[in-house]
Amino acid sequence: MSDNEYISQNFPLLAAIDSPADLRRLDVNQLPKVCEELRRFIIHFLSSNPGHFASSMGAVEINVALHYVFDTPNDRLVWDVGHQAYAHKILTGRRDRFYENRTMGGLSGFPNPSESEYDTFMAGHASNSISAALGMSIASELTDKQRKIVAIIGDASISGGLAFEGLNNVSSHPNNMLIVLNDNDMSIDENVGALSAYMTKLTTSKRYNNVRYKAYQFLRRRHVISDKGKGLVLRFNNAMKSLLSGQQNIFEGLNIRYFGPFDGHDVVQLVKTFTDVKEMTGPKIVHLHTRKGKGYKPAEEDPSVWHAPGKFDEETGERVVGDPTGKPLKYQDVFGHTLVELAEKNDKIVGITAAMPSGTSVSMLQETMPSRTFDVGISEGHAVTFAGGLAKDGMHPFCAIYSSFLQRAYDHIIHDVAIQHLPVTFCIDRAGLVGEDGVTHHGAYDMAYLRCIPGMTVAAPMDEHCLRHLMYTSQLDGKGPFAIRYPRGGGVIKDWQCEMKELPVGKGRKLSDGQRLAVLSIGTIGNEVKKALATLKEKGVEVAHYDMIFLKPIDESILAEVGEKYAHVVTVEDGTIEGGLGSAVAEWYADKENAPRVTRLGIPDDFIHQGTVPQLKEQCGIDAVSIAETIQKILTQN
Amino acid sequence: MSDNEYISQNFPLLAAIDSPADLRRLDVNQLPKVCEELRRFIIHFLSSNPGHFASSMGAVEINVALHYVFDTPNDRLVWDVGHQAYAHKILTGRRDRFYENRTMGGLSGFPNPSESEYDTFMAGHASNSISAALGMSIASELTDKQRKIVAIIGDASISGGLAFEGLNNVSSHPNNMLIVLNDNDMSIDENVGALSAYMTKLTTSKRYNNVRYKAYQFLRRRHVISDKGKGLVLRFNNAMKSLLSGQQNIFEGLNIRYFGPFDGHDVVQLVKTFTDVKEMTGPKIVHLHTRKGKGYKPAEEDPSVWHAPGKFDEETGERVVGDPTGKPLKYQDVFGHTLVELAEKNDKIVGITAAMPSGTSVSMLQETMPSRTFDVGISEGHAVTFAGGLAKDGMHPFCAIYSSFLQRAYDHIIHDVAIQHLPVTFCIDRAGLVGEDGVTHHGAYDMAYLRCIPGMTVAAPMDEHCLRHLMYTSQLDGKGPFAIRYPRGGGVIKDWQCEMKELPVGKGRKLSDGQRLAVLSIGTIGNEVKKALATLKEKGVEVAHYDMIFLKPIDESILAEVGEKYAHVVTVEDGTIEGGLGSAVAEWYADKENAPRVTRLGIPDDFIHQGTVPQLKEQCGIDAVSIAETIQKILTQN
Repeated sequence: MSDNEYISQNFPLLAAIDSPADLRRLDVNQLPKVCEELRRFIIHFLSSNPGHFASSMGAVEINVALHYVFDTPNDRLVWDVGHQAYAHKILTGRRDRFYENRTMGGLSGFPNPSESEYDTFMAGHASNSISAALGMSIASELTDKQRKIVAIIGDASISGGLAFEGLNNVSSHPNNMLIVLNDNDMSIDENVGALSAYMTKLTTSKRYNNVRYKAYQFLRRRHVISDKGKGLVLRFNNAMKSLLSGQQNIFEGLNIRYFGPFDGHDVVQLVKTFTDVKEMTGPKIVHLHTRKGKGYKPAEEDPSVWHAPGKFDEETGERVVGDPTGKPLKYQDVFGHTLVELAEKNDKIVGITAAMPSGTSVSMLQETMPSRTFDVGISEGHAVTFAGGLAKDGMHPFCAIYSSFLQRAYDHIIHDVAIQHLPVTFCIDRAGLVGEDGVTHHGAYDMAYLRCIPGMTVAAPMDEHCLRHLMYTSQLDGKGPFAIRYPRGGGVIKDWQCEMKELPVGKGRKLSDGQRLAVLSIGTIGNEVKKALATLKEKGVEVAHYDMIFLKPIDESILAEVGEKYAHVVTVEDGTIEGGLGSAVAEWYADKENAPRVTRLGIPDDFIHQGTVPQLKEQCGIDAVSIAETIQKILTQN
Repeated sequence: MSDNEYISQNFPLLAAIDSPADLRRLDVNQLPKVCEELRRFIIHFLSSNPGHFASSMGAVEINVALHYVFDTPNDRLVWDVGHQAYAHKILTGRRDRFYENRTMGGLSGFPNPSESEYDTFMAGHASNSISAALGMSIASELTDKQRKIVAIIGDASISGGLAFEGLNNVSSHPNNMLIVLNDNDMSIDENVGALSAYMTKLTTSKRYNNVRYKAYQFLRRRHVISDKGKGLVLRFNNAMKSLLSGQQNIFEGLNIRYFGPFDGHDVVQLVKTFTDVKEMTGPKIVHLHTRKGKGYKPAEEDPSVWHAPGKFDEETGERVVGDPTGKPLKYQDVFGHTLVELAEKNDKIVGITAAMPSGTSVSMLQETMPSRTFDVGISEGHAVTFAGGLAKDGMHPFCAIYSSFLQRAYDHIIHDVAIQHLPVTFCIDRAGLVGEDGVTHHGAYDMAYLRCIPGMTVAAPMDEHCLRHLMYTSQLDGKGPFAIRYPRGGGVIKDWQCEMKELPVGKGRKLSDGQRLAVLSIGTIGNEVKKALATLKEKGVEVAHYDMIFLKPIDESILAEVGEKYAHVVTVEDGTIEGGLGSAVAEWYADKENAPRVTRLGIPDDFIHQGTVPQLKEQCGIDAVSIAETIQKILTQN
């Protein structure tokens, strides 16, 4: 049976929804059935083609109600992090392509404006929806377009500083935007921070809020409240609420009208609520409670694991987990174990993660030494400045953040760590190509944006042993800010538990000698180089290979040696070719006499979309086959 | 009379305070006199050696009371932006060097740990104090040091997302830090945002807060409240307050005990308050009202102008303003006038500033078209993402942010603008060396950190006409994200009001032909090159000069032409030499046959401290004299 046949047989309502206009033709009482079909649809396709499961399941009703009430795409839905938005993709003309979600040439895993007019803004990094939606609201006012703008933000995303900056500006300029707070009290891992605790408290006043809301509806139906008077009555109600409950409402403190919390899984009630608030003037927030993984028992019970569960058996919920026996550990796990090992010996070491304890494996330290582990939630800037404060007064923080999210903390690295030459180890996870998460998640820029910072050490290990040596080295006295980048996923060495030793900072190593050409690589991409050189060797071509280990300071003795011996140098890195290793090498040779020619391989100066890591390496010309081809071409031409 | 004699004659109390220990030996009733002397001291020295005036005057009592109550330097005072901290510098052993504030080799204008053990953390960029102090508090707990940690943050700084991330994490881990909110309802310009409005509202409950505080003291004196019960009573009081006032307290919502607002100029009362809260466990915030410029009438009346007034007459308050007649305008003003001119013709254009309307001259658009101008307060990240939202729905934002502050918005540039190829013009003010503000404020990295972003146009004008042409070009259809960097201060052309025209993107221009060597420069530093080449020409040495205008895309036809004609190329830029123009040029030649040798001049790979701009250019080797010397050396050697 083809996918299309399968869909029309199993999802009769969905099969007839080619766009939200079709959804809006349904009776409101059919919406629960649409939600039920959406859930089964997501379960079915994600069981064989993995994606972000639990968040999407939890936001099904919100997706349906919003498209039912608002006139999309003229009205704008701005999703904060695309995890919530699979139902949105399915309802907006991408149902029949959903099987190719997160694959090369297929659908992006996140809303992406280049894919659909319904995807109003990029949504790969958290906390940007309120600011972007505010921009759209004001554009709508200035151009007199009469659009409605809705930002949908999760309770984890709202802890980010950017979301707060957005909230703080929402009431500064006339606009009518609606913020939907999708609150499942859960980030990828457990939620942290005062705001999270605060939202839990808000729940306890649910009864009062509901009474208040019903009173409002009652008055409205009887036309006691005019459009003009609405605001006043609501503000009175809010004041009442705070009088009665003794609670502090942060959103009202920021001049945003607050409604909730409501049940985010009652789609009929959601339609009513959104219809009610839709025409209100001024900014407002609707607070909804949802459950991550809602409607699929295994996911409801363990939402953290089911954030992105991989393949699973649709019927039983059994996850298809490959047998790890005999395979190398993930770099993340080697990092996690090594961090614990180091922390046991050096009591200055603390671990910091920004909402990614299990993704980074900082969780291992969290379990062993909870008082020395800090999950600061989605706030990368704070993570780094906080690390600066800890380091200033004697601690040695290991700050583990994904490369593309560390972009949020750029100034903090410069101003709060590097200028003061503080001992902070930046463990840059998901460096290089990340695969299916695509354009917003590749760790492509870190080498370029860190190399220009004075006094930073920037390193990348080629294997797990080197990762351990670098971690060990970084925590020795006097090393200052020290960045270690490593990719997502499996390593190359089964016996990773080597004795750790100090590596001389700024020293690379020679892996092989060669004839006319030398390759300089940094990081795990060096393993592709190794493979390429092995195939060339079989053809009788011997090429030298140096593993630089350090991007900064760069090993000038290697550069001098290579410059003397070889007429041509190829640099290979899994980062942008503008500003990284290739640039450092080109810069060094630029003013030398009789310098070798340098060919730079890396992520080209373009945005790279989703695909498997091997596919993307090939696309960038940094897989073993492409590297070998490039080398042969150079040798033939010269 | 020497400075030292002047000080001992005019400031008898200050003259005896060589460290806070001396201050603490005084009777509390002498503190008002200390404050009075500090004010006169600041007025006296700043009248001849300009600095940040109004903020420092407003925070005199806070500085004195904190050093009186807390055991500095063992206890940590973490200042948020150093503007507040001149009295701190004077009280902590730097009184006799204060005359060299903000000068080369002298005192930094901001707290700087490399200068004094009393300066606990870098404080050049806003909003970092809470996160840094939290790190120190936790370090103190982990190392059992029993330190007290105090963050002192202004009401403008607290609107930054980083401050919110800090606040949100303050109650997550056991710590006893104190946050002092210095609230003068005033950023450099007027304050914006809901939080600011909110704090004004808090004031209106002052009477109630005072009653509450007195009740607390009463109970405490009578030992009704034990240390253990304190928290409960306070929480009860806070709930009471919200019951009685109907107000929302954001800080209490975030689990931080709130006290205030109190008069920040009553030093005796401040000492009492700080003494009271000092030993309380758990995080707490004391909210103080102060007046910017307090104690100097001209500054109280016009605090915005007196933020950094330049030289002035101590007696009359008359500012020493140079006669602008016949001098070129500042780049900022040319930018401001041009923005208005463009906005009059193109109704899609809007202007955005992050708390710097007068600094950037976005104020000119604000005056002409207030509904199309957005001052978002200290929140650079929001500024950029908000610009992305506006651009996505049809507007063309000109986002004017200082180069070093734009580091805060790095991810936002990539994720919320560049990936979507949105039409936003980034007007990067204070690019290059900024002079007296020093190490935290130089715009050294923007070319390096922007060049690696795919699809960005990065340009820098050599003069005012080119600035206008670039601004005009950037707002034409299809240009995408477009960065224009220009320095602080005066331009080079008196008649700046040229007809604007489109510049071909990625095309530079030849300024002069030469013999053996060509100089490629970008931006206003090209004027130093011009001077250098003029002196060389007098000596009979003709050197070619190209103004690249665009860093990205780089003009490859110029590079090809230069590569053919000249054996040596010198690149000159006022940005870091790692990753900027020099790197782009070195990269391009790297794989070419018979490439010229490239010598790169720019800001060296080191942190540059304060000084005048000419001093710092000389230090970096990018003033006319140094450039000429470098060229001659190259020509002699070859």
